Amino acid sequence: MRNLLLAGCIGAAAAFAMTAASASENLQKMSQNPKDWVMPAGNYANQRYSELKQINTGNVGKLQVAWTFSTGVLRGHEGGPLVIGNVMYVHGPFPNPVFALDLDHDGKILWKYEPRQDPNVIPVMCCDTVNRGLAYDNGKIFLHQADTTLVALDAKTGKVLWQVKDGDPKKGETGTSAPLVVKGKVLIGISGGEFGVHCRVTAYDENSGKMVWKAFSEGPDDQILIDPQKTTDLGKPVGKDSSLKTWKGDQWKIGGGCTWGWISYDPELDLVYYGSGNPSTWNPLQRPGDNKWSMTVFARNPDTGMAKWVYQMTPHDEWDYDGVNEMILADIDVGGKERKVLVHFDRNGFGYTLDRGTGELLVADKYDPKVNWATGIDLKTGKPKRVAKYSTEKGGENHNTKGICPAALGSKDEQPAAYSPQTHLFYVPTNHVCMDYEPFRVSYTAGQPYVGATLSMYPPEGDSNMGNFIAWDAAKGKIVWSDAEQFSVWSGALATAGGVVFYGTLEGYLKAVDAKTGKELYKFKTPSGIIGNVMTYEHKGKQYVAVLSGVGGWAGIGLAAGLTDPHAGLGAVGGYAALKNYTSLGGQLTVFALPGS
Amino acid sequence: MRNLLLAGCIGAAAAFAMTAASASENLQKMSQNPKDWVMPAGNYANQRYSELKQINTGNVGKLQVAWTFSTGVLRGHEGGPLVIGNVMYVHGPFPNPVFALDLDHDGKILWKYEPRQDPNVIPVMCCDTVNRGLAYDNGKIFLHQADTTLVALDAKTGKVLWQVKDGDPKKGETGTSAPLVVKGKVLIGISGGEFGVHCRVTAYDENSGKMVWKAFSEGPDDQILIDPQKTTDLGKPVGKDSSLKTWKGDQWKIGGGCTWGWISYDPELDLVYYGSGNPSTWNPLQRPGDNKWSMTVFARNPDTGMAKWVYQMTPHDEWDYDGVNEMILADIDVGGKERKVLVHFDRNGFGYTLDRGTGELLVADKYDPKVNWATGIDLKTGKPKRVAKYSTEKGGENHNTKGICPAALGSKDEQPAAYSPQTHLFYVPTNHVCMDYEPFRVSYTAGQPYVGATLSMYPPEGDSNMGNFIAWDAAKGKIVWSDAEQFSVWSGALATAGGVVFYGTLEGYLKAVDAKTGKELYKFKTPSGIIGNVMTYEHKGKQYVAVLSGVGGWAGIGLAAGLTDPHAGLGAVGGYAALKNYTSLGGQLTVFALPGS
Repeated sequence: MRNLLLAGCIGAAAAFAMTAASASENLQKMSQNPKDWVMPAGNYANQRYSELKQINTGNVGKLQVAWTFSTGVLRGHEGGPLVIGNVMYVHGPFPNPVFALDLDHDGKILWKYEPRQDPNVIPVMCCDTVNRGLAYDNGKIFLHQADTTLVALDAKTGKVLWQVKDGDPKKGETGTSAPLVVKGKVLIGISGGEFGVHCRVTAYDENSGKMVWKAFSEGPDDQILIDPQKTTDLGKPVGKDSSLKTWKGDQWKIGGGCTWGWISYDPELDLVYYGSGNPSTWNPLQRPGDNKWSMTVFARNPDTGMAKWVYQMTPHDEWDYDGVNEMILADIDVGGKERKVLVHFDRNGFGYTLDRGTGELLVADKYDPKVNWATGIDLKTGKPKRVAKYSTEKGGENHNTKGICPAALGSKDEQPAAYSPQTHLFYVPTNHVCMDYEPFRVSYTAGQPYVGATLSMYPPEGDSNMGNFIAWDAAKGKIVWSDAEQFSVWSGALATAGGVVFYGTLEGYLKAVDAKTGKELYKFKTPSGIIGNVMTYEHKGKQYVAVLSGVGGWAGIGLAAGLTDPHAGLGAVGGYAALKNYTSLGGQLTVFALPGS
Repeated sequence: MRNLLLAGCIGAAAAFAMTAASASENLQKMSQNPKDWVMPAGNYANQRYSELKQINTGNVGKLQVAWTFSTGVLRGHEGGPLVIGNVMYVHGPFPNPVFALDLDHDGKILWKYEPRQDPNVIPVMCCDTVNRGLAYDNGKIFLHQADTTLVALDAKTGKVLWQVKDGDPKKGETGTSAPLVVKGKVLIGISGGEFGVHCRVTAYDENSGKMVWKAFSEGPDDQILIDPQKTTDLGKPVGKDSSLKTWKGDQWKIGGGCTWGWISYDPELDLVYYGSGNPSTWNPLQRPGDNKWSMTVFARNPDTGMAKWVYQMTPHDEWDYDGVNEMILADIDVGGKERKVLVHFDRNGFGYTLDRGTGELLVADKYDPKVNWATGIDLKTGKPKRVAKYSTEKGGENHNTKGICPAALGSKDEQPAAYSPQTHLFYVPTNHVCMDYEPFRVSYTAGQPYVGATLSMYPPEGDSNMGNFIAWDAAKGKIVWSDAEQFSVWSGALATAGGVVFYGTLEGYLKAVDAKTGKELYKFKTPSGIIGNVMTYEHKGKQYVAVLSGVGGWAGIGLAAGLTDPHAGLGAVGGYAALKNYTSLGGQLTVFALPGS
């Protein structure tokens, strides 16, 4: 009997392993069908690139709005829809409704799911009540709710298949990021860097919701799933207690390093990639040391969570330069050699190109020339060359350091960049914003803000534009072209085989530009400011481009939450005050296509 | 000294009279410039007709969305914008924001005004938190707030010039209707027929906000501004106490007759026209008598408020067939004679044509063939020929009368019809809905619901469509063509010299049809269900068509207020339950134009 049971278990495990493997293969394969848009970033490489080319540089000027849809929710709409076959899945910010829309009938609602969530989660969401999107696999839609609940819904009916609570909003733990499904596991991060959350990425079995592994950003090796000998940092083993050694006392337990950015995956190397956020608190004097592994790129095995390599962009952060921004995977020529790289536009204003197999640092340069807190990155040590006058801790607590570029929301924040294999360029929505930063002493209380700094934000001296949309050569570390925008470009980019790149603006324009030159080819004023990510799909032989409007997010928090104190919203309210002259709250999907049937 | 003062007063009065007269002439003249849209109905005649014809039957199929704007408010968006020169004025439901948008810059916000209102007004708004639009005159924008405050704003800056409270939400008095400015006076009605409000129309001086006159719908002659000898009903003087005699005791003091519909004006006859609503309560057994002058067309002098004539459509209402629907003024051939008529599509399902100078009843016929509560209207007596089995009081209280057509929300509600002088046809958005009605005893408490009936609504037997968009010949009392719609057409129509008629649907489609045939020429799915009124304007040589989306109103109250009990929303929730499969809450303006610059 025992043997039989055991055999049965092995059989089940083997069957599961196969299912898992095929699930991953299936998603990878599905992402290669340009008619669908099966994951928020379009593909595992996070390239936000589509092979569709019916809309091209010659005809994009004739683009029209094909149909529209209101989510019924106001405040910031980050993320974007998925399309699988004839169905589009649209999500919204808190209370996180999910809609399945029938593409055969102008977006008729096939089903709607709206979780019941305690509204007390709203005050612990630092930067608006955003949600960055859904994941799909094997007939299931996965929603990561504001209250950290991960829900699996039947993609056909919207019925709840299982749900699991990932964190506790009472401690300031919230869910804002999109899940990524890899090999039958749903990976999610967590938000709460302004509440002293001890952050991690967790993998759940897609069929049962059971936890498979959990990897913290800071703490003992067995909690951060780092092997002191095998896990490397710029090619060298990290050694024992690589995180603990860089924190004073137990500060790491409330050390942030949150994980609310995008996750990417290389099926060939079998590694997932993501970044960790700021160390808590924002007052650097309260946490001496490098604060590892906050501000770090992690390359982890998706089955076990074990880290293959790590790289910390901003040791001992003094500016809230979270490392959460997405890792875009591409194969490009660097110095005459085809390299499998990972490209990352960090909040700190540097664009990094690393070998994604080894973590070797190949290129690191400013993608906004006004970045001034560091003069460059030492490619050997990986460390930034800091400029003393922009240190926020040198002057001690309650000293206001002025003119630091970029501001805390970085030269880029969560708004994802795109990569075109046609042009070999990266298209990056950026913030062109500087700040004054004054750290102050703060004590930790679970669920209370644990920020410890007062900020003001404004455009760089001499500039009136608060954003640029740029094309970046990641092999050379150079800006190829740059389009100035009045406000930060807080929308995710889309690159297409039609030679057109799309992005949205905080005033509400969807813009299409020439991928080679940046020349504006089309713009349209959508109902509200755009912080959503542009996507494209094909339905009945026609290419569509879609984007969520709904001003908000960190840059738009003043409008979204009705704040007027210029220092509120972690310093963003004053900087973006003029936004109210251009747009108003909303929550709409706008779908574009060329004229004719 | 005394004489001097007197002379001074006379001088001031004369000066005022001149200003007032020129104000009226000015508005009348402005409304004849088809580039602008200076009052919600387009002109004083409430025709919702535009001379613009760049968009015509031949090219309307190529219409595109030009730009869009989100109001930042959810729930039902009735009404529509005004356009004066390069500025568009957009309003929203509670909390009633007003935006001045720069047409030269894709709707950049020139100013925004948002009143502070006690949210306790929301529960006393019977049929969603709607607002039907703004008025303009002499550089001022007039807003009639939910809490009944009438505000005058500087049209250039949005600054408050004056404000006056018209009623008391604590008694159930609310503001939903658009003001009409006539000869320097701002006329507004009041809502609250389901709260036993004693309703009236009030005129305020446009420069000072001082009350000029107030005319109740029920009560003593001096309160209803009726002259027993001079005011006529079908050509005969109404006589003394024409209202009081038709009520038992003091019931008239809580007698409803609300005035939240559209007001029209004939400058030549110098008469304003509007209708009064249902007598309170909905339980007819509690208020024996004709309940005059509820359910009545009033023709009043705009300077004094005195009634020239009255006509009651539904004496002793048993079905909530409010008489508030708009009066459209037109000059048409009736029986071989050119007549100055007033055409009114009543909630009771009959389309009335009256001589607007005398109140003579010329035509009255069903504009929905399924209307069954009466077989016709006696043109001599003006009285409906009732069908006994559909009386809701015959069975006594707590008896459920079934299969009454139309339902309480009428064959048409506030959604305004349009008239084209080209085709001489009226274009009417209709409800095709029947009901069961069960009256029950209710006692009056100020500010508490005073409804006294339980309702269910559903499409007429054998039909699946809950609405029709029809063309009506008001001279013959005949439907010329009828387009079936799945749901009630709760949007206002627009007729144009291009031979195209526009309307919106509850699912969210803007539709353009051929004015002669009703053939659908264009449709577009806007973000949310449309209960707004379509308007058109010209800017820089280009014709635009604009409409507010934002599902709600009485028909959409289930979605708007999140109600699920089928009897809730005065019986509408069950009838329109399927709407949730088509659209979601929103608040957006969509502006259309032909391609090219």
